[in-house]
Amino acid sequence: MGKNLTKRSEDYSKWYNELVVKADLAENSAVRGCMVIKPYGFAIWEKMQAELDRMFKETGHQNAYFPLFVPKSLFEAEEKNAEGFAKECAVVTHYRLKTDPNNEGKLIVDPEAKLQEELVVRPTSEAIIWNTYKGWIQSYRDLPLLINQWANVVRWEMRTRLFLRTAEFLWQEGHTAHATKEEAIAEADLMNNVYATFVENFLAVPVIKGLKTESERFAGADETYCIEALMQDGKALQAGTSHFLGQNFAKAFDVKFATKEGKQEHVWATSWGVSTRLMGALIMTHSDDQGLVLPPNLAPYQVVIVPIYRNQEQLDAISQVANEIVNDLRLHNISVKFDNRDTHKPGWKFNEYELKGVPLRIGIGPKDLEKRTVELARRDTLTKEFVAKEDVVETVSQLLKDIQENLYNKAKTYRDSHITEVQNFEEFKEVLETKGGFISAHWDGTAETENKIKELTKATIRCIPLDNSKEEGVCVYSGAPSNERVLFAKAY
Amino acid sequence: MGKNLTKRSEDYSKWYNELVVKADLAENSAVRGCMVIKPYGFAIWEKMQAELDRMFKETGHQNAYFPLFVPKSLFEAEEKNAEGFAKECAVVTHYRLKTDPNNEGKLIVDPEAKLQEELVVRPTSEAIIWNTYKGWIQSYRDLPLLINQWANVVRWEMRTRLFLRTAEFLWQEGHTAHATKEEAIAEADLMNNVYATFVENFLAVPVIKGLKTESERFAGADETYCIEALMQDGKALQAGTSHFLGQNFAKAFDVKFATKEGKQEHVWATSWGVSTRLMGALIMTHSDDQGLVLPPNLAPYQVVIVPIYRNQEQLDAISQVANEIVNDLRLHNISVKFDNRDTHKPGWKFNEYELKGVPLRIGIGPKDLEKRTVELARRDTLTKEFVAKEDVVETVSQLLKDIQENLYNKAKTYRDSHITEVQNFEEFKEVLETKGGFISAHWDGTAETENKIKELTKATIRCIPLDNSKEEGVCVYSGAPSNERVLFAKAY
Repeated sequence: MGKNLTKRSEDYSKWYNELVVKADLAENSAVRGCMVIKPYGFAIWEKMQAELDRMFKETGHQNAYFPLFVPKSLFEAEEKNAEGFAKECAVVTHYRLKTDPNNEGKLIVDPEAKLQEELVVRPTSEAIIWNTYKGWIQSYRDLPLLINQWANVVRWEMRTRLFLRTAEFLWQEGHTAHATKEEAIAEADLMNNVYATFVENFLAVPVIKGLKTESERFAGADETYCIEALMQDGKALQAGTSHFLGQNFAKAFDVKFATKEGKQEHVWATSWGVSTRLMGALIMTHSDDQGLVLPPNLAPYQVVIVPIYRNQEQLDAISQVANEIVNDLRLHNISVKFDNRDTHKPGWKFNEYELKGVPLRIGIGPKDLEKRTVELARRDTLTKEFVAKEDVVETVSQLLKDIQENLYNKAKTYRDSHITEVQNFEEFKEVLETKGGFISAHWDGTAETENKIKELTKATIRCIPLDNSKEEGVCVYSGAPSNERVLFAKAY
Repeated sequence: MGKNLTKRSEDYSKWYNELVVKADLAENSAVRGCMVIKPYGFAIWEKMQAELDRMFKETGHQNAYFPLFVPKSLFEAEEKNAEGFAKECAVVTHYRLKTDPNNEGKLIVDPEAKLQEELVVRPTSEAIIWNTYKGWIQSYRDLPLLINQWANVVRWEMRTRLFLRTAEFLWQEGHTAHATKEEAIAEADLMNNVYATFVENFLAVPVIKGLKTESERFAGADETYCIEALMQDGKALQAGTSHFLGQNFAKAFDVKFATKEGKQEHVWATSWGVSTRLMGALIMTHSDDQGLVLPPNLAPYQVVIVPIYRNQEQLDAISQVANEIVNDLRLHNISVKFDNRDTHKPGWKFNEYELKGVPLRIGIGPKDLEKRTVELARRDTLTKEFVAKEDVVETVSQLLKDIQENLYNKAKTYRDSHITEVQNFEEFKEVLETKGGFISAHWDGTAETENKIKELTKATIRCIPLDNSKEEGVCVYSGAPSNERVLFAKAY
């Protein structure tokens, strides 16, 4: 009956890999580095999509769809961007297979169907989109252009992990065009805030909003806003990024607009994205040695009802009560599953839903019928209580709110207690090795120091927090003067 | 001010291509055969997706996501399927670009990054999915497996047209596994019915449900159910297909299950899909020489309000009334846009929304304010009426229902009057050339005759209608005996 899940304390990484598969979220596929997102995992992603999509539309964005392929000549137009992604591109070179003349029933690439120009499978869509925007933008009347796309992208990663780093992943990418620099910066900041609000309220994952250093920026961006989360093993995870792209893509693709005064100017751009990586953040922040723990706001079903019975007569009587509860809960917009399958025992089901992180489990047995009660079990605290049947809806409503809040608070307490200020490099290294988490340290602002620290410790600068207070100090590594602390961490 | 749209009677094909672009639905991209779906077009597709997704879930299906790439060895496993798609596959052969040593700033495919096994960009996902199902199905308890995927697919078509035939397109593909043949056939039929209901109720496009002949079947299917629609130029369009796949994929990928009695048997399969091609069907069925005509059930906004004013004072007064109407309509779940942009004149806006097919337009000018009326214009009939302000919500609600119904009825009248029974091949050819539409004719049931007729007339058998009545007769081409009529047509 055990879940045979490796304990987090034994091997956090193994625990994660096992959990993703055992909780039916995703699995590796026959294609190197590509995952299959299973129905239960996909249902969580759909809930994320629905809410993000709502938030994007509320802030004036529209969805569109751009091609999967980027012709090589467009791909290389914005040099930094091209350089940043060239090493991990899947490239389509042919458009036909043919029967292998030497091997019946097998196919080979038809050498006569070679493309004149190779096509890159989009690792991100700035190039193809800005090439399109050129035709859409003529005048200030066409601005701002606020567009989002839900899509799959491919980055040929060498070391992959389900949800966290896969060759193909699902994401959304916003691409906006503006008349002024200020407006574009405000947009990048706004969308980073949208991400922060979403991740905190739905994933119940606290994040730090910040700016990336130059070396950690998106290839082709002038500034990258980000939200950084902390996992239970003390490693950071970048949960979303929003880029101010300056006029880089407008210049690379010659996208100009006529101002009100009739002058021709290059437009200003942003792009921003979150991906199925958020699934990794969700799983690693809350789950425990018993399995997944889901915040009610993203659970495919918030409540599961398991009948405990010995014969059909008992099941019938329990089903009547269960169905009443199902109806009541649905009327209150609470999603619920009544698992009356006769193919599995109650103990198996308890185990299964614990592993799958269903926020609340309702058990109903013959004794409950007599007493007109049900047993309510919370997944987050693993506590149980008996509740009178007529109080179920109210109690469940309240508990779902409590669980959502509790998960966030627990994660925040952990995160806050894992931001450690250090004064020198010895302390830096010690905290990193013994405690982990974010290290708040002075840095001299040079890429040289940043690289050296990364080389020596594997820690990178996760961000320069947006709410940073100025503080005079000296760089932990070089001793050069610094006027603010930045956050270092080992990261996913 | 004119729309400069080619007339349907002049050149239907040109009219379609112009309309798709001018109504802001889609455009060609820099990638051969791939389209950009613009926000207005994508908003219609999103509405289709939302309703279909609801219908799939209501019939017990769950969404999941499978890889974009199919390793060549999996792709070729089901021979008929592989043979059917091999000639139109985009193939990934390399996973990296590198700087061109002979051409600064340019990239070339890195010959050292050649994949050991080529990856086919999915033209359809049976192969990758059935290879996955092998791990998911062990026992009758795992069946039925009812899964759908929303995805992009690539088929390297030589002649492409926006929405109708593009190298990359968006679609959904359902893939189900069943314990018995009967159950799988029932599923294929059920999903074909779901498609028919959706297309008739939402696109307002009448369809004929039928079965494909062997030569028109999906590669790898034992039976293909389909829905066939008729466009205004008398050509048919296949709007959706649902396949009974027998045990073909189960055998190719060795997917067996233990029956209740403990025997090992291959499972039975279906797959079914509709795509962005539905956008083409929608556009071509209802639109006219003035532009797009949208059924209210799929219009991104069902009502547009255009203020007619000469100065700010008038606009302010009109806006007050307009905003009241906006609120009232939204309370009744009617989507509405108030276009108060000062950058465009009312005449321009009237033209624009006619072109974009908005079902109802409300015009409000200073005289309307005096009389407490508004002007209501129907896009489908191009008729106008004045309505008292307090009656707007009720009138609009009723008109939206009328328009939805009227579009369907009009299309059905046209379609029904374009199903012509013919008795011999002379009549067949004459009707095909002069009238077009579906030709109901006796056929001897052989692929030979079917091919010959196609060769001579370009007409194919669109389907053997499911509700066909038996009727003795002789094949229009061969004169051999036949016991039912089938539908021929030229098709998109």
